[in-house]
Amino acid sequence: MSLVKLYDTTLRDGTQGEDISFLVEDKVRIAHMLDESGIHYIEGGWPGSNPKDIAFFKDIKKEKLHQAKIAAFGSTRRAKVTPDKDQNIRTLVQSEADAVTIFGKTWDFHVHEALRISLEENLELIYDSLEYLKARMPETFYDAEHFFDGYKANPEYALKTLQAAQQAGVDCIILCDTNGGTMPYEFPKIIAEVKKVITTPLGIHTHNDGDCAVANSIMAVEQGIVQVQGTINGFGERCGNANLCSILPALKLKMEKECISDEQLRHLRELSRFVYELANLAPNKHQPYVGNSAFAHKGGVHVSAIQRHPETYEHIRPELVGNNTRVLVSDLSGRSNILAKASEFNLNLDSKDPVTLEILDNIKDMENRGYQFEGAEASFELLMRRALGTHRKFFSLSGFRVIDEKRHEEGQPISEATIMVKVGGKVEHTAAEGTGPVNALDNALRKALEKFYPRLKEVKLHDYKVRVLPAGQGTASSIRVLIESGDKESRWGTVGVSSNVIEASYQALVDSIEYKLHKEEDAAAKK
Amino acid sequence: MSLVKLYDTTLRDGTQGEDISFLVEDKVRIAHMLDESGIHYIEGGWPGSNPKDIAFFKDIKKEKLHQAKIAAFGSTRRAKVTPDKDQNIRTLVQSEADAVTIFGKTWDFHVHEALRISLEENLELIYDSLEYLKARMPETFYDAEHFFDGYKANPEYALKTLQAAQQAGVDCIILCDTNGGTMPYEFPKIIAEVKKVITTPLGIHTHNDGDCAVANSIMAVEQGIVQVQGTINGFGERCGNANLCSILPALKLKMEKECISDEQLRHLRELSRFVYELANLAPNKHQPYVGNSAFAHKGGVHVSAIQRHPETYEHIRPELVGNNTRVLVSDLSGRSNILAKASEFNLNLDSKDPVTLEILDNIKDMENRGYQFEGAEASFELLMRRALGTHRKFFSLSGFRVIDEKRHEEGQPISEATIMVKVGGKVEHTAAEGTGPVNALDNALRKALEKFYPRLKEVKLHDYKVRVLPAGQGTASSIRVLIESGDKESRWGTVGVSSNVIEASYQALVDSIEYKLHKEEDAAAKK
Repeated sequence: MSLVKLYDTTLRDGTQGEDISFLVEDKVRIAHMLDESGIHYIEGGWPGSNPKDIAFFKDIKKEKLHQAKIAAFGSTRRAKVTPDKDQNIRTLVQSEADAVTIFGKTWDFHVHEALRISLEENLELIYDSLEYLKARMPETFYDAEHFFDGYKANPEYALKTLQAAQQAGVDCIILCDTNGGTMPYEFPKIIAEVKKVITTPLGIHTHNDGDCAVANSIMAVEQGIVQVQGTINGFGERCGNANLCSILPALKLKMEKECISDEQLRHLRELSRFVYELANLAPNKHQPYVGNSAFAHKGGVHVSAIQRHPETYEHIRPELVGNNTRVLVSDLSGRSNILAKASEFNLNLDSKDPVTLEILDNIKDMENRGYQFEGAEASFELLMRRALGTHRKFFSLSGFRVIDEKRHEEGQPISEATIMVKVGGKVEHTAAEGTGPVNALDNALRKALEKFYPRLKEVKLHDYKVRVLPAGQGTASSIRVLIESGDKESRWGTVGVSSNVIEASYQALVDSIEYKLHKEEDAAAKK
Repeated sequence: MSLVKLYDTTLRDGTQGEDISFLVEDKVRIAHMLDESGIHYIEGGWPGSNPKDIAFFKDIKKEKLHQAKIAAFGSTRRAKVTPDKDQNIRTLVQSEADAVTIFGKTWDFHVHEALRISLEENLELIYDSLEYLKARMPETFYDAEHFFDGYKANPEYALKTLQAAQQAGVDCIILCDTNGGTMPYEFPKIIAEVKKVITTPLGIHTHNDGDCAVANSIMAVEQGIVQVQGTINGFGERCGNANLCSILPALKLKMEKECISDEQLRHLRELSRFVYELANLAPNKHQPYVGNSAFAHKGGVHVSAIQRHPETYEHIRPELVGNNTRVLVSDLSGRSNILAKASEFNLNLDSKDPVTLEILDNIKDMENRGYQFEGAEASFELLMRRALGTHRKFFSLSGFRVIDEKRHEEGQPISEATIMVKVGGKVEHTAAEGTGPVNALDNALRKALEKFYPRLKEVKLHDYKVRVLPAGQGTASSIRVLIESGDKESRWGTVGVSSNVIEASYQALVDSIEYKLHKEEDAAAKK
């Protein structure tokens, strides 16, 4: 089995996509997830282009990764300056990344029209920049921008640019289909021509403008390409980059390439979901391999066939990528759907146990109402505790009121919450202000409960996400709130769903508090 | 130029997709649209499987189509009956369609496990059924189900099934990748083998389970296939069918095949949108060729390049498929993004105009505070209007109060808003309830303003997104609200940022209302 290295650019090229924006903290979390998923290179950003990306390279140095190497992205030097004087090149070296990737111009038209320099000068830019970086960085890669368009316009010159990179001693030359319009049948011939003059290992970087990004990457691997660049869920400018969530299983299951482990592949769906969540985007239901509908069967003929032999209408076993078969006709799907749900949440319960059935019925019902337990493990644990009878009620609510008031066109409204709770027969009635209604409610609730449970003071609210769920047939749309809380030791996620954002937030806040109190009780019991 | 015929199965295979359901009336409307778009064959349904499909074939006979032929779908006859006694085959003839397509088994495993008959008997099923239909229908096609999987399992038998169809005299044999898992590099060799024994014209039918449906269809056309089956927007079971909205422009613009006219291609985006609308699904923003983001540019480098030469970062001219270039305004923006945006709104800005600089400074300042104008073009237009002095103040706020109250542990809180506004010296003080605080505030604000501006009644709130932005040094975290509103003609996005979610939502609501009122004024001025 030959080895193919995976190079993820979700954090750089992915963020060029419309609506994609990550905080530095999100980027660090995604880098950890990519590392655990076996991705070999993680392109973290373009440190020369904005301060947010510089911060990422600084922060990621403090983190411990298992195997992934962090790559910094940039361009060849500007004309008329030496690499050591070029700010962009210097920032790349200063990033202290494990690898560096720079792009240069392959297409003569771009050299004339974008760089406005001579073809010869461009070759010098490529050679100089790479030679300088190669001497200073552990690994150096070259992205040949617009390679396929450039090759079709002027093959001789396009190959010369690759030769300049090869002479500088780069570790890999990546052929980029920057505009994403190359057709799959063009790859074998062009790559064969490249291989006649280039002995440096080759990589591929494709975009999806022609709806062929994944296929084009696969065609290139079939021609002996050894590095594949792409993004999780195909995030990226215009129509997106090549989707690693589709390429990974193709490499492993169809082409028998060595890349990530079987175990890592079984977390593919989880990886996809995690990145959607941090981007605050709804997953693509019909996404190949990892989507909710990817193994969903509707037609009656198909359903009865797959129940006897899944391979009749499934091209791979869904569990290999952490997905599962779904049967969309409810009266046929009941039992198998419920059992599939159990393994989705790693529930090791007997299928005949009535508690299992209760939990799974609850989940199904809640998911129909818009709940989602990915990213809300604490709420899921509470749900299991309730079904198993190990859940304790720490307090009961007598009522709350939240008021936001604005008296002038300028300035902020004032938010105030009053709350009444009962703990073991004692009533606490109090009030608090906040920077908004949810913050005021959170402050009031915790102020009331801290009297009884002082360790709640340790809990901090780290993240708060709101998503509007589409209306079902004849029903109003509902709102899902995901909250991430933490104390000194750990972080946990909780979820609430309601047509009212205050109620949804309240549910998630209560779950977060109850989770913390259970955690403290369990810890005390262990001592 | 060689001719490729397009066979659309949106109305049959497309409806196998999760969440896809069309009324008979919808199907007739889509058939008209497909006909106008130059699609050669429209597969209307499987009349043998449900009464809705029988109704379609009856209704479509009354309609006048320009050129498209209507095809009915079904299967080979059952074992042990002659075609004239097979209900499914008889219904096909009764449909009076212009063409008929039946599928049969290619894969020996399916013959044994699904049909449970001998391999020889299956060949008889294929031959008999097709011979019977060929004598009774104007055109007869054969879908070789699971052809590629069948060929890989037992090539000899798979080819025999095609030969049975050829002997029956069918007009086209369609090679189906039913499970959608075939890789693009497998097509040339397999199709070459088929062509050694089959002289009947060949077609291709692919599914997207491997994320390669479009590429696989293109690979097949490159091998001389003359009929391409697919669906609009790639609707279909699991991950969908091959997307005709991607295949059509590839055939026309990349492969120079004769299929539809240039004029018909210019309506491609319209066709895509129309089908999404009737399916009541949100369009895929990043969809190749026709999506809103397909030609959207975010990076400053890309923007200045495409303004001089669009081909630098666009693989085709977007207007060829009825789409257009969009420039996104983000923290990656330079002066060129602002100027491009201004001309989009018909605002005449000069790069040296001090107003341009003021707008740029404003944007940078606002983005530092967490604003984002991607997806909030209406707020951006208002910002430009303010800088240019063409913004009008339609009302002023005297104050609002929002109250959320909950009196029991179970049940929803009640949300109520009171508001006081002034319009041209008149004061309106009113109140409204809502399903949450923002909804209550929106209801109250519009109730107050509709008195003065009745056309605000047309505005609907389509989407509401909330994102928590991280705290800066010593400052509280802030909240960004993106709202998408619309009226009968168009949709627009607005943004608000504040540490208080109510205030952020209020800003976005006010922008949405002001945008609508400006739009109405501009329209009235033109008359």
